[in-house]
Amino acid sequence: MSGIEARPMIPVEVAMVRLLEMAEATPILERERVLLAHAEGRVLANDLVATLDLPPWPNSAMDGYALRLADWAGEPLPVSQRIFAGQAPEPLTPGTCARIFTGAPVPAGADCVEMQENAEVQDDQRVRFIEPLKTGQNIRPQGQETTVGEQVLAAGTRMGPIELGLAASLGLAELTVVRRVRVAVLSTGDELIEPGLPLGPGQIYNSNRVLLCSWLQRLGCEVVDAGILPDDLEKTRHALGSLSHVDLILSTGGVSVGEADFLGHALREDGELSLWKLAIKPGKPLTFGHFRGVPVIGLPGNPASTLVTFALLARPYLLRRQGVTDVAPMQFPVPAGFTWNKPGDRREYLRGRLEQGRAVYYSNQSSGVLRSAAWAEGLIEVREGTTVAEGDWLNFIPLSEVLG
Amino acid sequence: MSGIEARPMIPVEVAMVRLLEMAEATPILERERVLLAHAEGRVLANDLVATLDLPPWPNSAMDGYALRLADWAGEPLPVSQRIFAGQAPEPLTPGTCARIFTGAPVPAGADCVEMQENAEVQDDQRVRFIEPLKTGQNIRPQGQETTVGEQVLAAGTRMGPIELGLAASLGLAELTVVRRVRVAVLSTGDELIEPGLPLGPGQIYNSNRVLLCSWLQRLGCEVVDAGILPDDLEKTRHALGSLSHVDLILSTGGVSVGEADFLGHALREDGELSLWKLAIKPGKPLTFGHFRGVPVIGLPGNPASTLVTFALLARPYLLRRQGVTDVAPMQFPVPAGFTWNKPGDRREYLRGRLEQGRAVYYSNQSSGVLRSAAWAEGLIEVREGTTVAEGDWLNFIPLSEVLG
Repeated sequence: MSGIEARPMIPVEVAMVRLLEMAEATPILERERVLLAHAEGRVLANDLVATLDLPPWPNSAMDGYALRLADWAGEPLPVSQRIFAGQAPEPLTPGTCARIFTGAPVPAGADCVEMQENAEVQDDQRVRFIEPLKTGQNIRPQGQETTVGEQVLAAGTRMGPIELGLAASLGLAELTVVRRVRVAVLSTGDELIEPGLPLGPGQIYNSNRVLLCSWLQRLGCEVVDAGILPDDLEKTRHALGSLSHVDLILSTGGVSVGEADFLGHALREDGELSLWKLAIKPGKPLTFGHFRGVPVIGLPGNPASTLVTFALLARPYLLRRQGVTDVAPMQFPVPAGFTWNKPGDRREYLRGRLEQGRAVYYSNQSSGVLRSAAWAEGLIEVREGTTVAEGDWLNFIPLSEVLG
Repeated sequence: MSGIEARPMIPVEVAMVRLLEMAEATPILERERVLLAHAEGRVLANDLVATLDLPPWPNSAMDGYALRLADWAGEPLPVSQRIFAGQAPEPLTPGTCARIFTGAPVPAGADCVEMQENAEVQDDQRVRFIEPLKTGQNIRPQGQETTVGEQVLAAGTRMGPIELGLAASLGLAELTVVRRVRVAVLSTGDELIEPGLPLGPGQIYNSNRVLLCSWLQRLGCEVVDAGILPDDLEKTRHALGSLSHVDLILSTGGVSVGEADFLGHALREDGELSLWKLAIKPGKPLTFGHFRGVPVIGLPGNPASTLVTFALLARPYLLRRQGVTDVAPMQFPVPAGFTWNKPGDRREYLRGRLEQGRAVYYSNQSSGVLRSAAWAEGLIEVREGTTVAEGDWLNFIPLSEVLG
């Protein structure tokens, strides 16, 4: 029995807590100002506080007529002004109404807007209102969205299209964001060859490189593509040493107690290496360590294992390094459309879908098979030590929740 | 009553069918070859068919020993070769076993791999197996992922990290994809001013521009930022005419029967204009038309209305123009954590969250309020004509399902 196998397995949630603690111990501290148009996917460095009321003034929710309710006693009112969106109105002349369009400021003195569909313009151009009127109707109050001094977004928010729109509505043309986390992607495995090259005997194509590089970019990381790690200790040391400027070295495949494990060797010699045995399937072995102070995470090399461990462990770690508060994907209880008779000692994340509202999984769940994930819409969680009967409720994590 | 209000409202699913039909009538036909590393978010133009078996040969799922089961009768076996990943093995010498590492090809003649933890190397270097052995154990069969000639991904698939990894595993360095759909984003509204500029009387900041531009980029579109439409018919005509190279003009705000509606005027004169009254809230008015043959979609201008109509209608339209087959976001039934007493005549999409497993919504659901969406994790669907009691099941669409 090797030393690794003898150690107890670490439950997923325990591993998560440890990884997030490590992330919080080495936060990215640099900040930068970026244009709003370039801030998609970036993390807010400071709370975003409103410097204006939004809307800045009460405005009309409809095309119609603004009036003071007290002026309406059934007698048609003359129109004293026309207020388009973007115009500053005069105060409302008592005893009159104002023609007003959606988004235009409600004039001082008016307390009601009636939509044009319920107004009748008479031959003398005076306006009669057909329906009963109420104070405040069809008026969006000043400060409805936010008022000066209110915190609109908290530091640690990832800026997606909606958050950018909100920042724009407050007049911000630039934001202070956390520097992108720099991640070097390394593949290990002498059998790997890059797509496009002819396949030699015993070789397979490197799929994890493009999987991780494109995924990291979606997460807003700066990616350093460090290629395939050479099968030589001196070259491995040199390759790792050239990555001293990154925030994380992310490797896939092959850190183990096995022979020909040059990455493990280099880490033990010039840094630190912990081999974690996770209670997760696919994906048992996870490496955490550092090389001359640069953190290293080693994911298992089988594509489905890489996928699941990156989605559930490396992704939250990377987001938290950038100060993101909300790193947990949403999950939904769904009824199982299958049975699971053999309780496992690891928590299993089946690549699955919903069909007629029930979770079903891809026939081949081998960790070597990536097609399961391309077919899938989410990860179905089967907890360790449990069996599943058809209709039992299981957690389902949509892939969209972890892919961005 | 205006002509618009008199028309019946169009249910969301009917509008969707019409929009998708329009998209299918004007598909993007151009194709381009792109490097795998640049193909993230692109749409596959052709079926992707495997040109090799994957894995190309049976390989070991473990570090251990490969043997022919028939050779094992309790007597230790000598080790005749060592096979690392990336090497081509010799056929197995009868009566021996081979040291083998994870991912390495299983030698011809071997039909079983035992993990090293269950093997005992004797002083004479021969190997004894402690546990019972089974044919095929720890061997990943050739073609487990796919076999030559099999369709691995269908035309119309959006290439995310997983699909790119799968393409890489098949050795593809380039893909043939559909040209990006070119979308011009136009804002209308004289009250709009760009963030960073001082706010004049009656003005508000343009939030939809950055909302839509960043969202469209996430969807893989090529964005033409056409700014704010000038408030003048001749200039409007000229601005629209300069967009003849785009696949869609996407405008927000202000196409109506109202006065000062230059976009509507220009479309009626030089193209076609349909004003749809959708049974959706927020977001009732939707414009569809074309200007000199270029399709135009006009979304309502209130930010929450822009958001909901883009997410549920414009997004699937744009994806389908690129030939994407699967354009529907996943939705999950969740119990309501609120009551809804007044049945609406429009289908309402509340910006909401899950709290303790129940759907709750942001206090202010005004269409002018974008903070509701920044707070939210998804859209809660309340169907037209229905009331909701606490615990009733409602559809929940995670925002992650529509934002990318």
